[in-house]
Amino acid sequence: MELVSIGDVRAAAAHLDGVAVRTPLLSCPWAGDGLWLKPENLQPVGAFKLRGAYHAVACLAPGVRQRGVVTHSSGNHGRALAYAAGKFGVPAVIVMPTTAPRVKIAAVEALGAEIVLVPPAERESAMSAVVADRGMSPIPPFDHRDVIAGQGTIGTEIIEDFDAVEVVLVPVGGGGLASGISTAIKALKPHVSVIGVEPEFAAETQESLRAGELRTWPIEATYRTMADGVRTSPSALTFAHMTAHLDDIVTVSEDEIASAVGLLAREAHLVVEPSGALGPAAYLYRRDTFPPGRTVSVVTGGNLDPQLFADLVMRAPLDLGAA
Amino acid sequence: MELVSIGDVRAAAAHLDGVAVRTPLLSCPWAGDGLWLKPENLQPVGAFKLRGAYHAVACLAPGVRQRGVVTHSSGNHGRALAYAAGKFGVPAVIVMPTTAPRVKIAAVEALGAEIVLVPPAERESAMSAVVADRGMSPIPPFDHRDVIAGQGTIGTEIIEDFDAVEVVLVPVGGGGLASGISTAIKALKPHVSVIGVEPEFAAETQESLRAGELRTWPIEATYRTMADGVRTSPSALTFAHMTAHLDDIVTVSEDEIASAVGLLAREAHLVVEPSGALGPAAYLYRRDTFPPGRTVSVVTGGNLDPQLFADLVMRAPLDLGAA
Repeated sequence: MELVSIGDVRAAAAHLDGVAVRTPLLSCPWAGDGLWLKPENLQPVGAFKLRGAYHAVACLAPGVRQRGVVTHSSGNHGRALAYAAGKFGVPAVIVMPTTAPRVKIAAVEALGAEIVLVPPAERESAMSAVVADRGMSPIPPFDHRDVIAGQGTIGTEIIEDFDAVEVVLVPVGGGGLASGISTAIKALKPHVSVIGVEPEFAAETQESLRAGELRTWPIEATYRTMADGVRTSPSALTFAHMTAHLDDIVTVSEDEIASAVGLLAREAHLVVEPSGALGPAAYLYRRDTFPPGRTVSVVTGGNLDPQLFADLVMRAPLDLGAA
Repeated sequence: MELVSIGDVRAAAAHLDGVAVRTPLLSCPWAGDGLWLKPENLQPVGAFKLRGAYHAVACLAPGVRQRGVVTHSSGNHGRALAYAAGKFGVPAVIVMPTTAPRVKIAAVEALGAEIVLVPPAERESAMSAVVADRGMSPIPPFDHRDVIAGQGTIGTEIIEDFDAVEVVLVPVGGGGLASGISTAIKALKPHVSVIGVEPEFAAETQESLRAGELRTWPIEATYRTMADGVRTSPSALTFAHMTAHLDDIVTVSEDEIASAVGLLAREAHLVVEPSGALGPAAYLYRRDTFPPGRTVSVVTGGNLDPQLFADLVMRAPLDLGAA
């Protein structure tokens, strides 16, 4: 299997110039002197997913792109693809389950995309039907080389902006982000440690990497975590990238994730969804599980239910330095 | 009275390189297509005040600086000065009223500054005593040319990053920020409108500019606003800058400020204090009171009580486009 290269990531960076926010690195004096955040929740759709989705649409041949794009993500990727299609002025269909929260449907509609609502079990077939009937290009959330290359631009930005970085923490769900970032970092600075972070309740990629084969956990297991962005399993493509490039994967508990969301609001002034708080949670509470050094943590997104967010802001944080 | 020049602002920019975060401009698709935010709540102390405080400390002669700095702000400036002094390894004394919330005192203490607690009426005399007895340099929050020049670096960054900007919205309290930003913008792009924003309950600078003389409102009036960062009156120095450079000042209501704080959390994923939400509130609800065009709104800070913040996140926002 041919892996995405640093050249692919650089091509994505050229496409994303002026489209994705060049997110700054934010030091965190409240967390000691070794943590910097890369706040991808500040992208226009509230998540890093804009990078991969936009680059994938940009890579389509103009005649193909004109027919439109389709995906069946109901989360940040669906929203990002709708936004990217809007930027190119081409149609987008987002297949969503009838169980999706009304607020998520409205967010995608507001971006001008067409929503196809189907029972959860019919999402794949509904997407295939759109591809077959309307000639639209499917853009999956992570199992796609251009999507991986787009997410990798976060890695090139980290190296360009912070030459002294020693550790990079990346949440792992489907693995597109971790694949792209680790591709970029290892090509540019092989000695920087790239560490994936998973919830204890969805640690299938940690288990898979240690076993040397892709293992999936049942949905009843992974749906126990509040980090809804990382309940997905990797594909063969992303697993190959992570096997090649990730140094390790560490895990955090639900309490640690919840505490990190509250601290990021109160101390870093950022609204971060639970999946986005995985890296900071690992830094704050599990620092003994990965190499020491100047650490950049990628904060992936900020889309969460306002009531859950308000509750986490008011919750007493865990003691720092429990690690 | 000699005003701060663009050269002074450029000197501040050189001092702040690598110290202040180069905050990005964030587009706001949720608010139409004409608003960009400059999120200064992402500075290490949670507010733009770091810029002016650090530059003022940097401008002191080394032998003078070594003796330390003092101020009597209990808000973001006090915290910023403590942070700046720490960066230079010199002592800082922050005079605070005995009425200051414990959390604000703790935040300044954590930065290594010495706190002098006095009854509110004795703050000025306590600061003077520190200056006389210990030879420390007083760094006031806005009535100081170096502080104004430091805040002005936000203006040079806006012009460098967004050549097509047409309107800049700036909160006005003591007027240091508005003085600095308007100095920079009018020097570089005189046709860009620079509009101050005040709460209706603390609109003394709007009244003063229209009267052509500095008028102050009683503290009982200005303390009605929840925007605690802008309850202060300008000095002769800042009023002279604003008279020379501001195009106008517009006002917003308390409901509009509250609604903007909630929308900024839910849509822009930023934790913003009420004073920081003045510009977005004006854009969202009072757009008919200032010139149209591509608008940058400076989001000044993110330090607010977590309970108040959680309440504002959950509050139903006002209708957009009520303007």
